[in-house]
Order: sequence, then C-alpha cells, then structure tokens
Amino acid sequence: MPLFPPLLWFPSEVSLFPLLAQVQESAQTLSDAEVEPFILISVLLSLVVIFLASKVGGELCARIDLPPVLGELVGGVVVGLSVLKLLAFPGEGGMGGEDSLIMAFLERTAGMPHEAITHVFASQGEIISTLSELGVILLLFEIGLESDLKELIRVGPQAAIVATVGVAVPFAAGTLGLIALFHVDTIPAIFAGAALTATSIGITAKVLAEIQQLSSKEGQIIIGAAVLDDVLGIIVLAVVASLVKTGEVKIVGIIWLIVGAVVFLLGAILLGRLFSPLFVTLVNNLKTRGQLLIAALIFAFLLAYIAAAIHLEAILGAFAAGLVLAETEKRRELEEQVVPLADFLVPIFFVVVGAQTDLSVLNPFVPSNREGLIIATFLVAVAIVGKVVTGLTVFGQDKLNRLAIGIGMIPRGEVGLVFAGVGSATGVLSDSLDAAIIVMVIFTTFVAPPLLRVAFKRSAVEQPVEQQS
Amino acid sequence: MPLFPPLLWFPSEVSLFPLLAQVQESAQTLSDAEVEPFILISVLLSLVVIFLASKVGGELCARIDLPPVLGELVGGVVVGLSVLKLLAFPGEGGMGGEDSLIMAFLERTAGMPHEAITHVFASQGEIISTLSELGVILLLFEIGLESDLKELIRVGPQAAIVATVGVAVPFAAGTLGLIALFHVDTIPAIFAGAALTATSIGITAKVLAEIQQLSSKEGQIIIGAAVLDDVLGIIVLAVVASLVKTGEVKIVGIIWLIVGAVVFLLGAILLGRLFSPLFVTLVNNLKTRGQLLIAALIFAFLLAYIAAAIHLEAILGAFAAGLVLAETEKRRELEEQVVPLADFLVPIFFVVVGAQTDLSVLNPFVPSNREGLIIATFLVAVAIVGKVVTGLTVFGQDKLNRLAIGIGMIPRGEVGLVFAGVGSATGVLSDSLDAAIIVMVIFTTFVAPPLLRVAFKRSAVEQPVEQQS
Repeated sequence: MPLFPPLLWFPSEVSLFPLLAQVQESAQTLSDAEVEPFILISVLLSLVVIFLASKVGGELCARIDLPPVLGELVGGVVVGLSVLKLLAFPGEGGMGGEDSLIMAFLERTAGMPHEAITHVFASQGEIISTLSELGVILLLFEIGLESDLKELIRVGPQAAIVATVGVAVPFAAGTLGLIALFHVDTIPAIFAGAALTATSIGITAKVLAEIQQLSSKEGQIIIGAAVLDDVLGIIVLAVVASLVKTGEVKIVGIIWLIVGAVVFLLGAILLGRLFSPLFVTLVNNLKTRGQLLIAALIFAFLLAYIAAAIHLEAILGAFAAGLVLAETEKRRELEEQVVPLADFLVPIFFVVVGAQTDLSVLNPFVPSNREGLIIATFLVAVAIVGKVVTGLTVFGQDKLNRLAIGIGMIPRGEVGLVFAGVGSATGVLSDSLDAAIIVMVIFTTFVAPPLLRVAFKRSAVEQPVEQQS
Repeated sequence: MPLFPPLLWFPSEVSLFPLLAQVQESAQTLSDAEVEPFILISVLLSLVVIFLASKVGGELCARIDLPPVLGELVGGVVVGLSVLKLLAFPGEGGMGGEDSLIMAFLERTAGMPHEAITHVFASQGEIISTLSELGVILLLFEIGLESDLKELIRVGPQAAIVATVGVAVPFAAGTLGLIALFHVDTIPAIFAGAALTATSIGITAKVLAEIQQLSSKEGQIIIGAAVLDDVLGIIVLAVVASLVKTGEVKIVGIIWLIVGAVVFLLGAILLGRLFSPLFVTLVNNLKTRGQLLIAALIFAFLLAYIAAAIHLEAILGAFAAGLVLAETEKRRELEEQVVPLADFLVPIFFVVVGAQTDLSVLNPFVPSNREGLIIATFLVAVAIVGKVVTGLTVFGQDKLNRLAIGIGMIPRGEVGLVFAGVGSATGVLSDSLDAAIIVMVIFTTFVAPPLLRVAFKRSAVEQPVEQQS
C-alpha cells in the first residue's frame, strides 16, 4: 500500500507501469495500487468542499443573526445531492460515481482513469461518512466535557419528565392522528409516530454551545433530556421494528436493551469517577507529545465502542467519557486541546447531514409529492407542538425558560433520518408516508436552531451571540 | 446512510429487520446498511489500538532515551502484520479479513455477521490508510509552519548539494556494487540503486522536532535537502520505471515532471506570499469557531491536491502551504491550533508504517531469505555510508554538525517502501533483491532516529531532550 502514491498514476503517454497497464487492458479492471492514490486526493477535495461549505454557510448565517450550524447544514445541502452534487454518497438518491462532480473533476485534472470511478466514489463516500461519524462522536465528547455531572443529576428528574413526555406526546398524537385523519394502517402509523419521538442531540447541543447556554439550567435540562430521549428512541425503534416483523413485541430483547442502557450509563460514570484519579496520575507521568489528548481519546473511543457493541449508540459512550473527564482537574486543558480537533471533524458531520438531505421531496410541482406534503404538514405540526408542550411540563422553578426547553427538543436531524431509513428498509411505509417523514425531519432540523436562539433571547438574561474560537 | 447505526445490527434473536434478513438468506450477501455500522466501530477499535501502540511505544522509548517516533514505529510493528495482527490491511503479506484479530473481536463482541468481514476489513483498511496519509500531510504542514522560508532559502545551495550528492552517491555505489559484486542484471541493479536514493522527510522531521533541532541551521539544511530529495526521488523513479518498460528514457515525460515540480514549488511560495495578507484579512473578518484553522486547512489541502494532481506528492503541497503561512502574523496562533490535530493524526501515520512492515524477510532461518540478507547487508552499508558522506560535502561554516546532516538523510521510511512496491509491481526484481531492498528500508528507518539523536548530542550545544506538549 503506497503512502506516497502519485507516482503510480502517470499520464498514459509516460506510462510507467507496463505490467499494471497490461492487467488493465486484459481485464478492464484496475488494481488496488492504481486506485488508491485517487482515494486520498478525492478525500482531500471533498474536505476542501466541506470546509468551504461550512465556513461560507456558517459565516453568512452569523451575519444575519442565525445560528452558524444552520449555515453549515444549508451549506451541506448546497454542495450535496440536492443542488451542486459536489459531495455525494453511493446509494443516496440513486446517485452513482458518474453523477459526482468531484469524480468528473478528478478525471479531468488528475488523470484518474474512468474505470476507477466506481471504486474511488464508494471509498470516498465511506471515508467521509466515517469522518462525519467521528465528528459527531467528538462533538458529544466535547459536550460531555462542558457539561456538569452534578448539575445533570440535579436536573435529572426534570430531564426525565421532558424526555418521557417528549416521546409519549408526539408518538400518541402522531399515530392516532394518522389513523383518524389520513386512514393510515396501524403499523405504518405507529412507525411514523415513532419517528416523531427522536431528538437530534448534536444539533441542539451545537446551537446551545454557540449561544453559550450549554451550562445554563435550561441547557443542562435539554442535554439530559436529549440523552435520555436518544436511549428511549432506541427502545421505541426496537419495539416498533419487532412489532412490524412479528406483530408482537419481543419482550426479552427489549428488556435486555433497557438493562444494557442503564448498566452502561451508570457503570461508565461510576467506574469512570472511580478510575479518573488514576487517569490523571497516568497522564501526569507521560512524557511524549499529546499525552492528555490521546489518553482521553483512547478512553472516549473505547466507551463509544462499548456503547455501540451493546446496541446503544457510539455518541452516548463519547458523551459519558466527556462527563467523567470533566470531573478531573484536567478538564480545562483537555477542553482547549479538543477544540481544534472538533473544529476539524464536527463541520464534516453537519455538512454531510445537509448533503444527504434530498430536497426533491419538497417540490409540490411533482404530483407524487403532493399527498406526502399534506401528511407532512400534519407531522410537522405534531413534531413541533408535541415537543413544545413537553417543555411546559417541567415542574418546579418559576423562572425557567420552558419554551426554550421545548424548542430545544424539536430538531430530529440525523436521528430522524435513521428512523426514516429503517422505515424504508422494512417496506411497511407507503412512498407518501416515507416522504412525509423526511419532510418532517428536514423542517424540524432547519427551523429549530433559529427558534431556539429567539427563545433564549426573549429570556431575561441577554447572552453574547457570537462565539470566537 | 445511517449515522446512528447500532440499531441496524440487533442480535439475531431480536431480529429487527425482516427484509434485510431475507436478502441475506437468499443471496448470502449483506446490504450496505447492514455493513456500515461495523465500519465505524472497526475504525474506533483500530484507532484505540493505534493510539495505545503509539503511546506505549513512544513512552518506553522516551524512558530509555530513544526518540519517541522510533517507539511509535516499533509499536506499529507489534500490533501489525508481523506480530499481533491487530492492525492489518488487505493485500499486505497475503492477509485477509479472516486473519485480522480486530475482525474476530468484532464478530465476538459486537455481533458482526461473518459474511460482513471482507467488506468491513477492506473499508477499515482504506479508512485507516487515508487517515495515516492525512497524518503525514498534517505533519509536513506543521513542519512547514515551523520552518523559516528565509533560512531555507539561505541554506538552499547547501541543501541542494546535500540532496544531489545524497541521490548520486548511493545510486552509483549501489548500482555498480550490485553489478560487480553480486552479478545482478543492469536493470534490476538500477532499480535497487534508485531505491537507495530516497529519504523519509516525515521520520527525520519528526525526530528533529522531538529534539528541538528543527529550526537549527543543520535542521533547516536537512529539511531543505529532504524536500529536494523527495522531488529528485520522484524524477529518479520516473526515469527508472520508464527505462524498465521501454529500455529507453522518455524525455518528454521527465521534463514535464521537472518543470511541474519547479513551477509548483516556486509558484506556491511566490503566489502564497502575495496572497497571504489577503488570507490574514479574511481570517480576521470571520466570526465563527475554527476560522483560522479551517481556512488554513482549506489552503493546505488545496495545495496538497494540486501537488498530487501534477504527479508530485501531496505532502509537498502541504509543506509549501505551511511555509507560506509561517510568514504571516498568524503563525503562532496557527501552530498552537495545529498541534492537537497533528497529535491525533500523525501517530496514525507512524504506527501504520510500522504495522505494514513485514519483518518475516529478516528471519535467517528461512533459507530463501539468506541470499536476500547477504545482499541487504551490502545495501544497508551503501545506504548509510552513502548518506553520511553526503553530509561531509556541505561547504562553508566550520562549526556545522556535518555528521548530523548526513545521518538526517538516512531513513528511507515510507518513501523507500514505495520504491520497493513499484519494483515488485514491474516484476524486474528477483525475490531476493526485493527482500533485500525491504530489509534496507527497515534497517535505515529504525536505526536513523537514535543515531540522529546521538549525533546532535555530541555537538557543542546540549539541547533539551524531551518535548512536552
């Protein structure tokens, strides 16, 4: 595997590699050694596109007083499959390597052979996707670091209420409304109702960080509720998917999942607190560069792996790792070191979420979209009202900004897309219902960041709006 | 493409996805949606292994007064294909997914279906390789940032001499020696001679940074010479490969390459200096997080892309970008922000170089290795002596540490592996000569870091040995 590869793809008139060329002529396929150099440069180009999209989008939004993360999402939409098709992923919206502008550009400028497109396109898609997933893992690690475990435990009961009501109300209202108003069958209606329960912790947390409300009481309730919502969402999806398959709920699997979630979250935090003095001692005794950051990342990636392996989500493990390390004396130093890494990886996540959004379902001039858009209007209403009333259920303290808490739970983001994806895979959703769920996800994702900002601005304490790195 | 994927790989007794399961039963292949979650967690596990290997190796070396980067390389060897087979890459040493311990671990702990191994193994290999290449790109960007363009230009003539002699002497001595002493045919002898010309700028630069000699006069001569050596190496390889194919040298292609290299390096630096005030103004007007780092990375990745597209190497573009930005007032701030990102990506590069090293060619008890080992002894001697005498040719200044300069050019590292790889691909090298080249690369790579350290220690000024981040 050559690490310095450009030598291997000389233009044909120089043609350095007779044997490789022979193979190519005889079998019309390229060897890995011929394809690999193009994988690296396609990733380099993709990263340039992603960073440009995130910065242009983010800066424009910052200037018109909207959350930069909304700009990153919109920037992603612009470079993604809906508009420019610069950033594309195999299988999304029926796109192949031939449709990708980056692949065409590589063919023109870097002499990439046409036969390499399929392989390079697939690899680039997998690599950028994985980087974006590492991005959201880093984001949740950073959010965990900036959270206060004691405060989270203090607001725990309120967060639990917000999460539970925020799952129950949209689920019930969505499912019953679809059956009563649109005569949807029970099983697909339950699936659509389940998709309404999700909350994108990533998008909400990013907006909270941008307006410096992460450590406010409201911010911690939202984060706590969003984490619990994630766990509840996993359970709901498991129940619904089991129901779809067999018509009954497999209790054993569900109980196993719940036990796993509880044991993992409590265990990670308790054991983590027990061993964190050891972590500090270890780091203090390391002599080589990056000792703190790398030791922390080993811990975070390990917990992320365990969380994923027991059928929770990798981000929950990263969040738990952040929470645990926030309790140590290394917190400040670690926060500072995580910032540049997060600045590198996190925009990839938001731009990729935007790039994978297929806006064509929003076009009312396509007749087949119309039924979906009518259902979508209902789902969007339930999605927003269902989460806003959730905020009102928070008991205690009069001065709490209940509206902001409800709005913080609105964005479905990438979690909603997973529900939609699983729904499509099971085949129980009609095309119009499937499209309606996607429209609901898009709408809640893009409308929540500006709303959240307005909600916090209306509260008594005015906060600084921009965040400088 | 699910971003929160664990939901998609429930254990079979819960079996959430009847349709996917049906597909699997009928065709014995898995859909992308089923495989993707395992790609993320295999990358998470691989990163944990890489970081552990780099830290354990680096810390052990630091404690016995050896360069940490040697420990990272050795750590890579231990977790790589030669020993533990934790970190493995498709096609290396005939390894498949079945041999990878990480794949076996995923099957056991995360319920990965056996059929997914091939796809997950290939994707994980591509992703980790790409991250390691981004690592060396970041390393060269950081080295560029820490270099002084004026000083590089001032030592330019000396660096040019070191590079030229360092290419000519090992090439001539190696080629002629192989023909005279070992009766090797002319073409393979030329190829082996060409492999002797390489210098791994990454390994040398890392050691120089570790012992804080990067900005010394010797350090800047070594860096300048290593960069020129890289360009010369590309030209030598092009000439040799052309010779191997047609028996003659295709002058047009070679001239094109040389012109491209000169235009690129001069153009990048001249245009870069012209536009760098614009860069500073732009960054000063950005308001969102990560403005400096992301703007700098866009510039670095773009130059890396261009360098690769014109058949130079991506790292040369990144180095040029670092040099240009080092001239701006943002240098200090940018250096600080690049450190954590480099701490994350650079160890991946060194561990991967180590992991891909196949030590089995060193085993003298395998009869077929013996002839290779005898030739290797000769190649190693030429490789070391050829570069050390190079240092002695530096004119001017009496107080220069000429031994250190020569030793700094010794490690062949990943560049040497590319020569060996291209040699294997053309089929002109006998097995024993191929193995001998690999042994030479391994030996020079592992022996140079401690030698370089000793050479600098013997010089008048004693420098601090450890570097704390």
